[in-house]
Amino acid sequence: MKHAEPIDFYFDFLSMYGYFASLRIEAIAARHGREVRWHSMLLGVSVMKTMGLKPLLETPLKGDYVIRDSLRYMRRHGLQLQRQPADPMMDPRPAARAFYWLRHEHPGTEVAFAREVLDRYWRQGMDLGDPDAVAHIAPLLGLRTDAVREGMESELARDELRAAVAASLERGVFGSPFFFIDGEPFWGSDRLEQVDDWLATGGW
Amino acid sequence: MKHAEPIDFYFDFLSMYGYFASLRIEAIAARHGREVRWHSMLLGVSVMKTMGLKPLLETPLKGDYVIRDSLRYMRRHGLQLQRQPADPMMDPRPAARAFYWLRHEHPGTEVAFAREVLDRYWRQGMDLGDPDAVAHIAPLLGLRTDAVREGMESELARDELRAAVAASLERGVFGSPFFFIDGEPFWGSDRLEQVDDWLATGGW
Repeated sequence: MKHAEPIDFYFDFLSMYGYFASLRIEAIAARHGREVRWHSMLLGVSVMKTMGLKPLLETPLKGDYVIRDSLRYMRRHGLQLQRQPADPMMDPRPAARAFYWLRHEHPGTEVAFAREVLDRYWRQGMDLGDPDAVAHIAPLLGLRTDAVREGMESELARDELRAAVAASLERGVFGSPFFFIDGEPFWGSDRLEQVDDWLATGGW
Repeated sequence: MKHAEPIDFYFDFLSMYGYFASLRIEAIAARHGREVRWHSMLLGVSVMKTMGLKPLLETPLKGDYVIRDSLRYMRRHGLQLQRQPADPMMDPRPAARAFYWLRHEHPGTEVAFAREVLDRYWRQGMDLGDPDAVAHIAPLLGLRTDAVREGMESELARDELRAAVAASLERGVFGSPFFFIDGEPFWGSDRLEQVDDWLATGGW
């Protein structure tokens, strides 16, 4: 059943290109009879340190280009976002911890949760760095706000997130979005055409 | 005559993705009635320093991925190269200086020269870090080997290359390949589909 394996989709809530990919990956996977396994990760914490890189937007020349490139992508795809690429970033940890707590305690809800966080943060321009703001998503998932609020600050949530970030690094994930299809790594929203092609052809 | 402006194509002889793009950019431009103005540059000299980055292949995680990504691209496009992405690199300066000497002294020949260098270096796996090896290309251009050999070591060639690298940095070029279409910057061989789309639609 090799071809029934889900696609692994790694993203950082703070990554605009990760957000772009989140809007397309499910449709691509579905077209080829695949499911998608979502993985929240934190580029800022350990990846930059491991790679010895500074944040993208603080890299001379490249930072300016990336802002232009993402705004151009948005115009092309008709995306209207309240948040602009150079706006200050939220603390991604409450949302990332809540993601893993949900996956552990209420499996299946974490994807709807991630979509809602991405939509509120990028499209609506809300700040979800505050645990209370994150917990407000609970009713949409059929859960109690205070349960999610407590869950995201539990030891379990912290441990799960730490382990997930370590596992993603171990697997070679260094950017957002990042995909694995049957073990083959693809980095970047600009690889989605290749992902589609790979799934259609069975690889090359 | 805005739409008659040539496309600026910046490349480093050492960049495999620059080589990939060199195989496609002329056909894309021609389809839209454009010409291509080629610019040789040196990523290693000032760009990495300006950006504070280490070379791509020496960047943890990303280096391994890039090797895999480029080999995958080659398989998909049926490219058979003698040189492999992780092979030791040549000194790119003799070829880059010859490029600018040719552009100055025999304008028009520098593009055929660049194509030949890229083909010999990447596809045939030859080392063109030696001025003599570079000069062997002269007869293909209808020029004398010793004239090109002397030309590439002239003060003129050195000055032209230095000025070209400084001008590319000034313009924000930080990678290879890099394109400008009517002032709009595009970075990476994976932006060629966007370049094509931009030319077809008049931009967005």
